[in-house]
Amino acid sequence: MARKTGSHSEITGPRIRDAALRLFARHGFAAVSMRQIAADVGVQAGALYLYTRDKETLLFDLLKSHMDDLIAAWSIHKSGENPQERLESFVRFHIAFNLDRPEAVFLSYMELRNLGRENFAVIEGLRKQYETELENIVKDGRATGVFSAPDSKIAALAIIAMLTGVTTWYRDGGRLSRQKIGDIYCDMARKAVSG
Amino acid sequence: MARKTGSHSEITGPRIRDAALRLFARHGFAAVSMRQIAADVGVQAGALYLYTRDKETLLFDLLKSHMDDLIAAWSIHKSGENPQERLESFVRFHIAFNLDRPEAVFLSYMELRNLGRENFAVIEGLRKQYETELENIVKDGRATGVFSAPDSKIAALAIIAMLTGVTTWYRDGGRLSRQKIGDIYCDMARKAVSG
Repeated sequence: MARKTGSHSEITGPRIRDAALRLFARHGFAAVSMRQIAADVGVQAGALYLYTRDKETLLFDLLKSHMDDLIAAWSIHKSGENPQERLESFVRFHIAFNLDRPEAVFLSYMELRNLGRENFAVIEGLRKQYETELENIVKDGRATGVFSAPDSKIAALAIIAMLTGVTTWYRDGGRLSRQKIGDIYCDMARKAVSG
Repeated sequence: MARKTGSHSEITGPRIRDAALRLFARHGFAAVSMRQIAADVGVQAGALYLYTRDKETLLFDLLKSHMDDLIAAWSIHKSGENPQERLESFVRFHIAFNLDRPEAVFLSYMELRNLGRENFAVIEGLRKQYETELENIVKDGRATGVFSAPDSKIAALAIIAMLTGVTTWYRDGGRLSRQKIGDIYCDMARKAVSG
């Protein structure tokens, strides 16, 4: 029976992406060759070029799909009737999403330096789009008087950095559960932008 | 006239460190060879080994001296009569110190993965020592009733992540001065741990 057209690349694509993500996060983008990624997946180096144009494109695709997934997941998970509830929703979402993807988070901060100008601008645009989601929550809270942050944009950047920082120290089975960590960060984030 | 003993290594050492820091931050530790560092400094590769045992030792020395400098500078700059003033002192110090060393900050977060177990433990110990400085400020504030953070340790990690994040977006000549940024972060950090 003939193999279905496309089935090979459909299976290989995710495996290439997984291998590239893991190897880039472990060794750094510049130290990893296309040949190493191919060997890790178990295909010839030439087969990678059926899937991606070059190594930078592979990196860009990883960073872009991380941001696309983040924005799509937030649009599904976001909830809350008022700015305080929306902020709590954002805090819990951001921590959970990032804790599930430590390698992608690490890569997103570390390897922006290896993107060309156009690719960098795309990723930066997606980041701004996501940051603006939180900025608007803070702005709405200021408008209704429940928040008093002097600068909504800086408040959003500060809270996102604070939340993303959890990925640098969190370990499953550690002193605090994810739920408890979420509670603590909700409390700090709300107070940081309140009067 | 004879050249003074030691003058060569005294000059070359800092140049090797500067070159290694710049090249590691730009390309990643694993992608940079000792040969490249030597070429950048303008010495033979062999001359590097008069200065450092190997590339990991060079990385470790960079990360360790960054932490040593941070801790020494804080012990000089710290001020404040009460927990609120001490927190403000910490916030302004941390932002200023890190904004002056973006490459060392980047390297400190990115290349811990390339340290062996013993070297990693040394850097982690220095980080904990620094984090404890802030943790104790929060604890003292709780003891005197001016702060109410539910977990002093998490509060310290959250504030440090928030402050370090400034290095990812700050540009000289941007919308906000360093002074103004310091004001905003002092306000957020104080409120985050207050009642």
